[in-house]
Amino acid sequence: MKYNAVYGQSGGPTSVINSSLYGVIKECLKENNEIGTLYMMRNGVKGLIEDNLKDIKDVPREQIELLPYTPSAILGSLRYKLKDFKNDETDYLKIVDTIKKHNIRYIFLNGGNDSMDTCSKLATYLKHINYPCYVIGIPKTIDNDLAFTDHTPGYASAAKFICQSVQSMIYDNDCYPKGRVNIVEIMGRDTGWLTASSALSSLNGKGPDLIYVPERPFDLNTFKEDVIEIYNQNKRCLVAVSEGIRDKDGHFISENASKDAFGHAQLGGVGQYLANLITQELGISTRAIELSLLQRCFAISVSDTDRKEAIKAGQFAVKSALKGRTGKMVIFVRKSSSPYKMKCSLVPVKKCANAISYLKPEMINKKGNNVTQEFIDYCKPLINGKTSFKEKDGLPVYANKKYF
Amino acid sequence: MKYNAVYGQSGGPTSVINSSLYGVIKECLKENNEIGTLYMMRNGVKGLIEDNLKDIKDVPREQIELLPYTPSAILGSLRYKLKDFKNDETDYLKIVDTIKKHNIRYIFLNGGNDSMDTCSKLATYLKHINYPCYVIGIPKTIDNDLAFTDHTPGYASAAKFICQSVQSMIYDNDCYPKGRVNIVEIMGRDTGWLTASSALSSLNGKGPDLIYVPERPFDLNTFKEDVIEIYNQNKRCLVAVSEGIRDKDGHFISENASKDAFGHAQLGGVGQYLANLITQELGISTRAIELSLLQRCFAISVSDTDRKEAIKAGQFAVKSALKGRTGKMVIFVRKSSSPYKMKCSLVPVKKCANAISYLKPEMINKKGNNVTQEFIDYCKPLINGKTSFKEKDGLPVYANKKYF
Repeated sequence: MKYNAVYGQSGGPTSVINSSLYGVIKECLKENNEIGTLYMMRNGVKGLIEDNLKDIKDVPREQIELLPYTPSAILGSLRYKLKDFKNDETDYLKIVDTIKKHNIRYIFLNGGNDSMDTCSKLATYLKHINYPCYVIGIPKTIDNDLAFTDHTPGYASAAKFICQSVQSMIYDNDCYPKGRVNIVEIMGRDTGWLTASSALSSLNGKGPDLIYVPERPFDLNTFKEDVIEIYNQNKRCLVAVSEGIRDKDGHFISENASKDAFGHAQLGGVGQYLANLITQELGISTRAIELSLLQRCFAISVSDTDRKEAIKAGQFAVKSALKGRTGKMVIFVRKSSSPYKMKCSLVPVKKCANAISYLKPEMINKKGNNVTQEFIDYCKPLINGKTSFKEKDGLPVYANKKYF
Repeated sequence: MKYNAVYGQSGGPTSVINSSLYGVIKECLKENNEIGTLYMMRNGVKGLIEDNLKDIKDVPREQIELLPYTPSAILGSLRYKLKDFKNDETDYLKIVDTIKKHNIRYIFLNGGNDSMDTCSKLATYLKHINYPCYVIGIPKTIDNDLAFTDHTPGYASAAKFICQSVQSMIYDNDCYPKGRVNIVEIMGRDTGWLTASSALSSLNGKGPDLIYVPERPFDLNTFKEDVIEIYNQNKRCLVAVSEGIRDKDGHFISENASKDAFGHAQLGGVGQYLANLITQELGISTRAIELSLLQRCFAISVSDTDRKEAIKAGQFAVKSALKGRTGKMVIFVRKSSSPYKMKCSLVPVKKCANAISYLKPEMINKKGNNVTQEFIDYCKPLINGKTSFKEKDGLPVYANKKYF
């Protein structure tokens, strides 16, 4: 007898979450397994609660083949937290109705910490009611802050866009006899993985002169001294800074920014604040640049390694569920960095749901204003490989949401 | 007898100005012409004034082959305006010393309006003193605001990056049941060519919902009405706006921004101002995104059409000079849009130096909040073609400035 599977996406989108969906589809639709069909949840776990599912077999073949080149979350995402079933069973009862109705035995949720929390709660509940259904989490986040995995699908593509951007901006700033201090603000409220990745632009040219991450306290005076030193020497400077840098008391520098100078929390970010400071106090020409949304959606820059690993993570989730594993998250285990070898494994999803992975202390230099070779060696293999996407009229061809 | 040539870059950099240098090199170094060698000016016309030149033959071959994939201005740029020689001949006398010393008969300057002004003055002076030397201008600007040419080298690559970015951001914003109003601020102080190009993302998916350019007066109330209408219908909205939009009295909206809300001219731009307005007055979640420097330097997105045309422009400049033409700028003349056919021609550089090319009235819709099919038809062929750049460690390999 064949059972069915269901897959959903949640949390912030990335450039490769649809690649994981592609991996799940490939593996589920293999003829020799016990999965009948794959349903897709619309807007994460809400789709399961509200029985808003679609059969993958109704999606045109050519649309499925475009998934590994399509950014964002094609099934629709949602941030929604399941309550503890001991306090409120409503959502769980509806979910069980849906999975019974569609003869579902395998559930796959693709997301970050919050989605892993959902996976964990769901797996626990289904065990509790003794319902035979297997729940596997597939990781995804550009932030790379999920614990127990070497890295997360989505991180490397964001990292690659960041280094390509920084590399271009360094070239741009190099062309005048007297350049600017360019301050590039990079995503990462709690961890510096994305900001650190800017250092890889040094692999083919120069890297940022200064890199500041939330893992180390940020001191405004030291920052100014660092900038002056570089600027006096080179007549230009590129600073990469995490949006989440904090002072020694743990206050976001961006909070100071909104309080001290702008009178409004939404105005610009920490990059603009630091740029104004340098201009006003040191009289040096500056420019603040926020890489913003493009970090998570600029699919032109997808790392082929990331894309392929995201597919693998999806496939591994299906294989694991078919073996009866449940309440687990897929992780990447690095066997070697050079040559780069990675394999998939599982950890209990409960452990991942609330754990955060920070840059290792030895990845940040002593002064706290750049990364070390250890970080470069860690990150370098992840951004490798150029993805050949289909182009029409000069633009990439993406899958169309209306079919999903 | 062989004479020598000299080439220089000035103004803001683009992703393909080094492609024009490549074209000039290829054409100058052909064995069967009367050019002995090609010198490169360092930092624009200053290099000529100060005799700061380098012989292209001293540059390693493999570095030259990387030029058509390298952003920024590899020879160094500079904004420097020659005085009228009737008032001050100093610079001109130095230039004549340099060209005599190096037996130079051909001068090529690659830049925008200001560089064409330099070309014009130089050509006029050399004629005035009856010195046999030919000056040709090669156009370059992402802004596409040079008159008499169908378009300028550099525009299409910036346009392509802009549409790819907008296309990605629309996908990103589509994934939540309730999206944001995203306001993308695009370069262009006086003309809307770059902002208009965002509309091309509709060729493979959706385009911006609203597009505002400096060619039409911008009214805040109409803007708010436009946004509400779209948002109520779609639960999300993407607005593309030129940094240079002005009110009916010709005042930059960004000036209002700095005066009304921020108290500081450098804080954020017009995109942030409009986003705050929408959030504060309409209570809708917004995000302002500035594409910033990446518009002119993100070489990953280079249009192959642009790259090849930039090379052609360089070659055509050399051929024209060898025919004894002087005081001219290379222009592109479009023979047909579908299939796309373009040829190079010349115009007197004096005519170009102070003329600005605006979006044609028929390229903007009646409401002044989007472009027409006429613009799409104009711009579409320019962004075509993917450039295959050399990649190492996941990053493009660019020419190294130290060799030039």
